[in-house]
Amino acid sequence: MTQEGSSRPPVPSDLVPDLTAEQLRTLHQIGDRWTRVTGAPQNWRLALPVDPHVGSYPAHHQVRQPRYERFVTVSELGGESRTTLAAEAAAVTSTRSGRAGYRIRRVLLGPALMSTALVRERMRKLVALPVLSSDALSSVAYGPEAMLTILVLGGMAGLSLSLPIALAIMLMMLAVGLSYRQTIRAYPNGGGSYIVAGDNLGRIPGLLAAGGLVVDYVLTVAVSIAAGIAAITSALPSLSAATVPVGLGFIALLLAGNLRGVRQAGILFAAPTYVFVLSVAAVIAVGLVEAALRGFPPAPTPRVDATTGVTLLLVLRAFTSGATALTGIEAITNAVPAFRPVEWRNARTALTWVVGVLLALFGGMTALILVTGTIPDPGQTVLSQLARHSFGTGPVYVLVQASTAAVLLLAANTAYNDFPRVLSLLARTHHAPRVFMRMGDRLAYSNGILLLSAAAALIFAAFGGNTTDLIPLYAVGVFLAFTLSQSGMVVHWWRSRARHWRKSLVFNATGALMCAAVFVTAAIAKFTSGAWVALVAVAAFVVLALRIRAHYDAVGRALRLRPHSAALPGNTVRATLCPSAAPPPEPGRPEKRGMGGGDPGAEEAEETPEEIHHLSVVPVETLDLANIRALAYAASLQQPVLAVHLSPSHEEAERMAGYWRHWGDHLPLEVVVCPYRTIIAPLVNYIEALHAQRPDLTITVILPEVVPLRWWHRVLHDRIAVRLRRALRERPKIVVTTVPFHV
Amino acid sequence: MTQEGSSRPPVPSDLVPDLTAEQLRTLHQIGDRWTRVTGAPQNWRLALPVDPHVGSYPAHHQVRQPRYERFVTVSELGGESRTTLAAEAAAVTSTRSGRAGYRIRRVLLGPALMSTALVRERMRKLVALPVLSSDALSSVAYGPEAMLTILVLGGMAGLSLSLPIALAIMLMMLAVGLSYRQTIRAYPNGGGSYIVAGDNLGRIPGLLAAGGLVVDYVLTVAVSIAAGIAAITSALPSLSAATVPVGLGFIALLLAGNLRGVRQAGILFAAPTYVFVLSVAAVIAVGLVEAALRGFPPAPTPRVDATTGVTLLLVLRAFTSGATALTGIEAITNAVPAFRPVEWRNARTALTWVVGVLLALFGGMTALILVTGTIPDPGQTVLSQLARHSFGTGPVYVLVQASTAAVLLLAANTAYNDFPRVLSLLARTHHAPRVFMRMGDRLAYSNGILLLSAAAALIFAAFGGNTTDLIPLYAVGVFLAFTLSQSGMVVHWWRSRARHWRKSLVFNATGALMCAAVFVTAAIAKFTSGAWVALVAVAAFVVLALRIRAHYDAVGRALRLRPHSAALPGNTVRATLCPSAAPPPEPGRPEKRGMGGGDPGAEEAEETPEEIHHLSVVPVETLDLANIRALAYAASLQQPVLAVHLSPSHEEAERMAGYWRHWGDHLPLEVVVCPYRTIIAPLVNYIEALHAQRPDLTITVILPEVVPLRWWHRVLHDRIAVRLRRALRERPKIVVTTVPFHV
Repeated sequence: MTQEGSSRPPVPSDLVPDLTAEQLRTLHQIGDRWTRVTGAPQNWRLALPVDPHVGSYPAHHQVRQPRYERFVTVSELGGESRTTLAAEAAAVTSTRSGRAGYRIRRVLLGPALMSTALVRERMRKLVALPVLSSDALSSVAYGPEAMLTILVLGGMAGLSLSLPIALAIMLMMLAVGLSYRQTIRAYPNGGGSYIVAGDNLGRIPGLLAAGGLVVDYVLTVAVSIAAGIAAITSALPSLSAATVPVGLGFIALLLAGNLRGVRQAGILFAAPTYVFVLSVAAVIAVGLVEAALRGFPPAPTPRVDATTGVTLLLVLRAFTSGATALTGIEAITNAVPAFRPVEWRNARTALTWVVGVLLALFGGMTALILVTGTIPDPGQTVLSQLARHSFGTGPVYVLVQASTAAVLLLAANTAYNDFPRVLSLLARTHHAPRVFMRMGDRLAYSNGILLLSAAAALIFAAFGGNTTDLIPLYAVGVFLAFTLSQSGMVVHWWRSRARHWRKSLVFNATGALMCAAVFVTAAIAKFTSGAWVALVAVAAFVVLALRIRAHYDAVGRALRLRPHSAALPGNTVRATLCPSAAPPPEPGRPEKRGMGGGDPGAEEAEETPEEIHHLSVVPVETLDLANIRALAYAASLQQPVLAVHLSPSHEEAERMAGYWRHWGDHLPLEVVVCPYRTIIAPLVNYIEALHAQRPDLTITVILPEVVPLRWWHRVLHDRIAVRLRRALRERPKIVVTTVPFHV
Repeated sequence: MTQEGSSRPPVPSDLVPDLTAEQLRTLHQIGDRWTRVTGAPQNWRLALPVDPHVGSYPAHHQVRQPRYERFVTVSELGGESRTTLAAEAAAVTSTRSGRAGYRIRRVLLGPALMSTALVRERMRKLVALPVLSSDALSSVAYGPEAMLTILVLGGMAGLSLSLPIALAIMLMMLAVGLSYRQTIRAYPNGGGSYIVAGDNLGRIPGLLAAGGLVVDYVLTVAVSIAAGIAAITSALPSLSAATVPVGLGFIALLLAGNLRGVRQAGILFAAPTYVFVLSVAAVIAVGLVEAALRGFPPAPTPRVDATTGVTLLLVLRAFTSGATALTGIEAITNAVPAFRPVEWRNARTALTWVVGVLLALFGGMTALILVTGTIPDPGQTVLSQLARHSFGTGPVYVLVQASTAAVLLLAANTAYNDFPRVLSLLARTHHAPRVFMRMGDRLAYSNGILLLSAAAALIFAAFGGNTTDLIPLYAVGVFLAFTLSQSGMVVHWWRSRARHWRKSLVFNATGALMCAAVFVTAAIAKFTSGAWVALVAVAAFVVLALRIRAHYDAVGRALRLRPHSAALPGNTVRATLCPSAAPPPEPGRPEKRGMGGGDPGAEEAEETPEEIHHLSVVPVETLDLANIRALAYAASLQQPVLAVHLSPSHEEAERMAGYWRHWGDHLPLEVVVCPYRTIIAPLVNYIEALHAQRPDLTITVILPEVVPLRWWHRVLHDRIAVRLRRALRERPKIVVTTVPFHV
């Protein structure tokens, strides 16, 4: 998990990792041993019956429009190997459903994009600011309300604490903002929490941060959409019954848009944020000015009955709920390379602006809430109440609500950009399945996008789209990632001793301490009301990531090319004749090649053609064209062949033997009578016994398979080939070959 | 569909049909051509590296107890081929779920049975009679009631017609009974409707009879179980709410019992029928004697309001509903070989007894109904009302109801014996999927049993387990089969002119005419009330059977060994070198071998090893052990090999080419750059282009496949091998080989 490995931008060839110098040496060594068999390199030029340059050969200038050709030759890489450029997949999908799926995908997602279309956009600050800050700024739509919802439980005494708690949260914002300014400087290629924590603190903290982020992104989608729908239903209460379907519809919209690979740039994405900031600022300004003109009269607060005493727990819960207003503040640190040069300086300026606007909006809203005596109402958001208070229900109110909903949808879209990216980074270090590294038709990480949509839809539906119920889950993951990221920065400064390191260290340490305090507080105070879900999810994520890594490591070890050990006895073909009454093989005779002892796959470690000794086994059902052809295929490979016939009865066995003699007895036939009428099990048994007798042989099972034209015809045929392939799959050194026969 | 082919008892080797003399000649001819390649027969004895006699070799006397050995050698069939006896499947099933499934099957179904356990039981008449007649006799439990249910719609005027209609039905019974006596004599090996109609009338009438029977058996299960539950709920009305679950439970019981291979012999199956006959006879006798003692007073009939006039349609509907009492009468004709010798004479005597008892019970019940003035009651069966009238609600009443329910369950079990047998006969003549010919662990036709259970459960649940609603569907299929079977007998006698043929012909013609009348009447009179379902089902069955036969015929034609035509040009290996700028292949160059023109599969008609020209294609992802091993495997086959690398980008392509040179460039490498990041489609495209260029080559695609230990690890690997195999499956002359690598 080195910095340059994980923080460089993703490229499609991440899927094919480099070979190490060690591996290259081994490769060369293996190649030398091949020379003994294949002779001098490139004698294949004379042997190959097909010119590998198949298809049509357009001129070089045609390479750019590979719309109708299926193959386009690009260049010759030194003559030994040739490169062909594959065009789009359209014509190939063989099944009708496959073609239909392809057409639907093209209509919904647009034409497939070539990998070369993967360019980084550079954004002006004026565009980058709203695009990257929608997540952070939109959280004022639910942060203050989340705080009030808790405080109101303590009655008037509780509500009176809202000002100090809000001030504490604003202090947090300042500290976190200053802290992230340091991160931007140190990680000009983008310093997400996972990267910073992983680089500086080690693997487990990195994974914890990644787990926090992953849980956070799922909740960002769920909470933002829930709050966005609340903004809509505040204006149109009749819609509130349809919260869940409308929310799932929004998730489907985000899914489709992101599979299309919507870029988060452009005026379309910048406008709602500006409108939101300006309209909320107007609500605050009008409300406060009006109150000031009336000399701040004590608001006619409706009496609230305390359902609980004002305990420390209540205060802490209110604080952590309000702290959700900090979410999204890190987005700019992730996206430093998206700014124009000097990237880190522009990103830093943008961050300062965002934190400033956030502070102003949060502070202003809190003040206006206090002045107007607003308390949470299940049917209407606090922001909606404030807007009505300032502007009534006219067009300005509608503008506030609409821009709130729009900016929250953009915030959810931010998670769609970051979640798949984090998963792809994890996959690159083998902590997540490889599929998350694969880019779809439209250069988006389709699998990550699908997973996020599924998880968010599940959470959203499970909580009925209720913001208040979702908030307790939210803060935990965010502040875990914040804490680890900023602790990582402390270590970074301590190690690097770069310019101003002491000042930066202090800023980061402050941020880390405050975030840690919020994390611990949130985890404890809201454990029972939902935080446990997030904690369990993060823990499960880390365990899963470690197990996935362990599996990939094991596979990598097994697949690694090994320097060849000294020649072992039994490496030459044993061409001895085994007469019919051969002694049974000694049990437990040494068969391991001594390369790594109990290493998995050691039995399958042949590296050169001469090490592979063949025996082909052809299961023959009857002597028809498909079976004769499979026998001919097996015989034409010029390796020992053994035909096996499974017979349901002794009479049938004798009949088959008769046919075999009639044919001329060209290949050895073994007849197995199956008195229990099963086919697969006796055949597998037989092949296993062959393997036990001669573990040095690679047994190729050559199966004739009748492939009918129409899919429903398949039920009319025994699917022996499919079932046998599945049964033999788990067994070592057994190669399965299917010789199709189309009817 | 000759008589000896279809009417002999089933054996497991039906699955492997005989070769015709023509086929054997062709086989010999092909064998001669192999000799050119393989040399004198039996030189493989020297070449084979493994003794085919694998496993342990117990003495001959141990063959009978193959419980722990996995292979048991039985005999040597002339020395060329050897026979091994496979033991049970226990140890082989590789997956954990497979082993669990095996264990569950053994607990539920008992140990697997060897094919040699398939012996025909012979039954004494006293046992055979009740066992084979349960279906016929049990129908008096619903036949008279079904008739009354229709007549009561016509009010008192309708009910007054019950005596003449009952007499007509009894006349039918007599005629059908006499008619079937002739069939028994003519078909001593068992003459089911399908066989008789097929043998004498041709294919379509045979299939129509089979369709009628198949529909009939499904309805027998549904109607018998519905009537059986009605017998129970008449005594225990509180159970009537649970009709559907109880009925489905009974079907599950029949399913499990028949998968176990319950034999229909023994006292357990004979007792209920005797108890049923005796107790119903007692009900009739007591009721009639009591009425006679009282001088047959006019019964206090409750006034019934006519809901419809007494039309001809009503009479016909009542007649056809009552005629369902004839169902099951043919069971004895199917089972002639189950009697002790002289079989046909004993079977004939048994049939006479059954018809006699049936006439007595049906007539007696009708008389008692008239005397007591019983009318149908939705809450209680007519038989239950009669039993209460004769015996009150004491222990005798309970005995009547219990034996009725038991005998109806036995009647349903009869269908479980006959339905799979009919399907297996159809499968033997290729009119049904082959799976219906396969016998399960316990020597039962498991697939037919499963299909019958599913269909019966569906019908039963769809009609809510209501006998009255099911009856209209029932008569149609039965009487269609009866009519065709007896028409077939008429043709049989006309052709054979055996002893007494004139008398037999008259009896069968009478039966056929009466059954035809009932069939036409039922189809018309009850068309809208449900008969259309049965008619559509029979028609669909026939169409499906013909299409299945057409498919198997097409497959058989394609698979048939063909006499070799004169040697064609292009039959020798083209070892010419195609330089890098080869001219594109001429489109549409002749590639067909001229054997049968447009015959499907003509492209894949290689019959001898020398006709097969190889090219191996190895898709290489990177140069790790699994891929090197696949390359070594390919190279060791000593045939031309072409490696293909699909690269996501040009940089990666050049890197791979570098590795390849480093390794020593032992095999030709083609690099395909996939700018759209798909893997399967470009590879399939490439292989198709190779095939288009050289259609004479058999292309073997050799895929390295990493097989993880645990199933859930599969999501961590690209399943390229599986997906590529699926995509290549449909394409001609492409053989797919999977080289597994276990980690």
